[in-house]
Amino acid sequence: MAKKSVNKVKHIDIKGIKDPRFLAGLNYKELNFLADDIRKEILAATAKNGGHLSSNLGVVELTIALHRSFDFSKDKIIFDVGHQSYTHKILTGRSLDDLRKKDGVSGFQKMNESPYDCYEAGHSSTSISAANGFAIARDLNHEKYDIVPVIGDASISNGLALEGLNSLGHSSHKVIIILNDNEMAISKPTGGLAKAFARLSTSTSYNRFKSGYNRFMHKTKFGAKIYDFTSAIKNWFKRKVIPSNIFMDMGLAYIGPVDGHNIKKLEKAIARAKVIKKSVVIHVSTLKGKGYKYAENDATGYWHGVPPFDLETGKPLDMHEGKVSWSHVFSELTEKIIEEHQDAVMISPATQKGAGLDGLFEKYPDRFIDVGIAEEHAVTMAGALSLAGKHPIISIYSTFMQRAYDEISHDIARMNVDATFLIDRSGLVGADGETHQGIYDVAYLSSIPGTVVTMPSNIDEAKALYEESFNHHGAFFIRLPRALTDKAEVKDLSLEFGKWLVVDKDPNKKLALIGVGPLLRELEKELKDNNVKCTLINALYLNPIDVECLKSLLDYEQIVIYDPYSTRLGFVNQVMAQLLTLKFKGAISAYFVENEFVKQASIKEQLEKYHLLPSQIVSDLKK
Amino acid sequence: MAKKSVNKVKHIDIKGIKDPRFLAGLNYKELNFLADDIRKEILAATAKNGGHLSSNLGVVELTIALHRSFDFSKDKIIFDVGHQSYTHKILTGRSLDDLRKKDGVSGFQKMNESPYDCYEAGHSSTSISAANGFAIARDLNHEKYDIVPVIGDASISNGLALEGLNSLGHSSHKVIIILNDNEMAISKPTGGLAKAFARLSTSTSYNRFKSGYNRFMHKTKFGAKIYDFTSAIKNWFKRKVIPSNIFMDMGLAYIGPVDGHNIKKLEKAIARAKVIKKSVVIHVSTLKGKGYKYAENDATGYWHGVPPFDLETGKPLDMHEGKVSWSHVFSELTEKIIEEHQDAVMISPATQKGAGLDGLFEKYPDRFIDVGIAEEHAVTMAGALSLAGKHPIISIYSTFMQRAYDEISHDIARMNVDATFLIDRSGLVGADGETHQGIYDVAYLSSIPGTVVTMPSNIDEAKALYEESFNHHGAFFIRLPRALTDKAEVKDLSLEFGKWLVVDKDPNKKLALIGVGPLLRELEKELKDNNVKCTLINALYLNPIDVECLKSLLDYEQIVIYDPYSTRLGFVNQVMAQLLTLKFKGAISAYFVENEFVKQASIKEQLEKYHLLPSQIVSDLKK
Repeated sequence: MAKKSVNKVKHIDIKGIKDPRFLAGLNYKELNFLADDIRKEILAATAKNGGHLSSNLGVVELTIALHRSFDFSKDKIIFDVGHQSYTHKILTGRSLDDLRKKDGVSGFQKMNESPYDCYEAGHSSTSISAANGFAIARDLNHEKYDIVPVIGDASISNGLALEGLNSLGHSSHKVIIILNDNEMAISKPTGGLAKAFARLSTSTSYNRFKSGYNRFMHKTKFGAKIYDFTSAIKNWFKRKVIPSNIFMDMGLAYIGPVDGHNIKKLEKAIARAKVIKKSVVIHVSTLKGKGYKYAENDATGYWHGVPPFDLETGKPLDMHEGKVSWSHVFSELTEKIIEEHQDAVMISPATQKGAGLDGLFEKYPDRFIDVGIAEEHAVTMAGALSLAGKHPIISIYSTFMQRAYDEISHDIARMNVDATFLIDRSGLVGADGETHQGIYDVAYLSSIPGTVVTMPSNIDEAKALYEESFNHHGAFFIRLPRALTDKAEVKDLSLEFGKWLVVDKDPNKKLALIGVGPLLRELEKELKDNNVKCTLINALYLNPIDVECLKSLLDYEQIVIYDPYSTRLGFVNQVMAQLLTLKFKGAISAYFVENEFVKQASIKEQLEKYHLLPSQIVSDLKK
Repeated sequence: MAKKSVNKVKHIDIKGIKDPRFLAGLNYKELNFLADDIRKEILAATAKNGGHLSSNLGVVELTIALHRSFDFSKDKIIFDVGHQSYTHKILTGRSLDDLRKKDGVSGFQKMNESPYDCYEAGHSSTSISAANGFAIARDLNHEKYDIVPVIGDASISNGLALEGLNSLGHSSHKVIIILNDNEMAISKPTGGLAKAFARLSTSTSYNRFKSGYNRFMHKTKFGAKIYDFTSAIKNWFKRKVIPSNIFMDMGLAYIGPVDGHNIKKLEKAIARAKVIKKSVVIHVSTLKGKGYKYAENDATGYWHGVPPFDLETGKPLDMHEGKVSWSHVFSELTEKIIEEHQDAVMISPATQKGAGLDGLFEKYPDRFIDVGIAEEHAVTMAGALSLAGKHPIISIYSTFMQRAYDEISHDIARMNVDATFLIDRSGLVGADGETHQGIYDVAYLSSIPGTVVTMPSNIDEAKALYEESFNHHGAFFIRLPRALTDKAEVKDLSLEFGKWLVVDKDPNKKLALIGVGPLLRELEKELKDNNVKCTLINALYLNPIDVECLKSLLDYEQIVIYDPYSTRLGFVNQVMAQLLTLKFKGAISAYFVENEFVKQASIKEQLEKYHLLPSQIVSDLKK
């Protein structure tokens, strides 16, 4: 019998899908087979190219159900963050073969890829506000379509999403929110909301309770009387006694929890949501990593985003022997720092795993605080910790720190409290593309009075700067790139605060080269190999700049500035403005990243595009 | 009898208060007399100096009750925003005589003013995160003190506060939150939370219901049985049926609502909150503006923050005959714009009144959207509105726009959608001091790819730039200062996109002066009056800068840059870096605001401090 039913199943060639209309012709058995095939495709593409795995494996059935319930060539689907859109891409005819590669399909929703993508992101928690905007426009235009943000349980606890929910609860412009609750997110979600969702998920649903209560109340005469009495105060009762939840409190309707791997049940819930007049939340329970044992059993968040790996063993393909990431370097330094400085407290906004710090968060649970995706809260809280005598260390990605610009200014720098920021993924980031570049932070941090922004070029300087940050300099930022460095013993180094290092001195005073970060060290090597003579300056401090050092360069024939980690609005313009003020009369040139949103490619390809590879610089200088 | 009891009342000399310890010796009658006297003092100081009135009149009794219940020389009181701390200032021995004046008492909490101020702000919604930080530090240090953030119903709906609540709900570090619910805020609060608070405030409290229900259930035998049955499923029942609210959903305890003008009841509620083990919200209902009829009856938010006024009539002392504020100029332009552009939709994050737009919000309710204090949501929503074919106009203060830095980059500029931003209160802002300066925005906006940042020097240019912003330039920002200008008919002006205007041309090519904004026009006049000859450039476009115009200035002997509205990190450094790149060999000097947090004083005093008054520039040039 099993064999017979298999024979009946319509098989879909994944690679041949053009658009999602074929879904209407499949029965639930066929849909489940399709889901399995999609999982295999996602696994193959991610194993080959790297990418977001767990979240994509979790929403296969959900995405199928959504495409069967809506027509997203006119309805709007907005994947929050967008990294869980692989099934959506497959169903709308996109190949994952070159996922995240230069000129390949993006790891996020992208409007220029498909008419089925009405929106795009990369940072979390924008989908509800975006949905709100679409809904207002739709209703002003008297159009008819549905708007469906799909948001995870960690993303929804960010301030922007909560502002969006609050606004929707008051609004007459309807949207259908899918809350994809996998109790995991990048790492374990934190906060009261996470607990509230868990309560909703583990309890019988309200509706089941209500009908049971009614039935019980009507079984006995007295019960019936009591029921009538309670009905008499119905409005008040309803308002006050009926179990509410955070969404209902905010004025939204609520359906759920629904099994996120049961397409039929999902479709029923969506059908109910469609007829409700106001904005509604469908609470969907999914299993992150579903269908791949390593990802299903992942408690640490490793399988959230992975480099290329072997499908059988789950091991990364490239083990980078003898190399170590800059995140790892700073993780090791952090353990030393917090042992030496008992006042140190580390804060992470949900990126402890990505920053290689998860081991420390487990080892020091009191002094390592993960606040979830709440960059603003992380920074404001850090300011108060500092006022109360602690020294906060905030580990944060450059691109996500943008969310806390105001808090860095208003709640840290303005009160001149001490805090160390480890800015992970500074500079170009490669495959994540436009939404994740870390090339803007020097510019925006420099706009805030009193900030100190630094970037080490090797691990000894990293240690020295980390220690310097504890010497009462207010907000002290240390940038680390998304790159590998050689494994090595860390040596003690004595650095003077605010001073650049002269790495090499050319007595002829023809050429001075001011450079930044680990790529400066690669350039140094390349210069030596090519016998190019110059005075080489290691600009450890990007803000404020070392004006005294600049004064010593004024009689050089030529100054070259090399900052492959930022746009010119950061460091380069400051140096140039200062040189003009100091009446420098020689030739000047500068290498920097164009001030644009840099598309996905490998970091090397991105550097090459902007003419920033050390070999390119040396070739210029030899001319 | 009335006379007799009056005689018994201890009278407190407001001006003689040194610290709040005297409060312990007063009875409730005396405390109410004190509250009346404090109100008179607040009214007198605000009428004289201007300041925040309504919120301060609303929390007199609350502040007294808090100071009687806690010892804020060790306990921490954190007034959210801080502008409602006038009673606190009086009770801790500070005079309001020079409120908001240079070297006088600040309009906000300030740590350098008093040991009773443990924290300070100016932007909203930071208090809960700050409290969280203090609580973690306290518990790590094994100290014992209470932490009491006092936050309004509008501030608590901002994303940062909601992140803080979410974090607290999960945290073992206790704080006591005072929710000061006056259903008003700057203007009417919006969103689902506001509705939820209203429900809580108008209904009988849960505890009263619960005991009534218990009593009823035990009155009859059958009732008792049913009660026992419900007790048997107590845990589930408690979790699911007991009326919850947003705070309980987030894992916090809840007390309230409490009459915020009844000191005794407030003290009782605080006493209950002290013995609860976890973080707790005391929901206090207050009447904003209480005790001053104009402020009590204010539905528009006029009395939130006021200039000096006549106590009897409520009329502002200075009517500024013949003058009009820049906010007002743009309000009038906005009405024209939205009539011409039917796709235009205006969004304000709770500052419609301050920006002089409240009339339009009333007149065009569908196309004018106030999202409450939710800058991030406002901007992300605007991006989606634009994608859906609308043209959003975001009216926002420079200092509050900092909250939306990431959203401007990620949700507007990156997708290259069209949006007009009216940046109110750009430049120096005067009495609000460090927390409200609008001198950083050119720098932080320029760090975002593709932004266009402009500043008109007169109302004709204002109109032309406003219209230009509709010609598909992506994110288009127009800065307007906190200042007055002459009333005049607006004339049509034809401007070329991206081009600076040559106001005056000196054929000798000795001096070129590049200036910004309305103060440039004052400088122009001053130059003429003093017969100083120069080529005068009106730099309407601050980013990107007009490189072609700079090229035309390369053979000048001297270039002077005059930007009295920003730090050098904005416009000045860009011009200088470009001049160096263009190999300008002449003399250069620049006038700009120091990159620091500028203390309260009049705007004129602040300009003078930084040597930015037109008269100061002319005097320099004459040397």
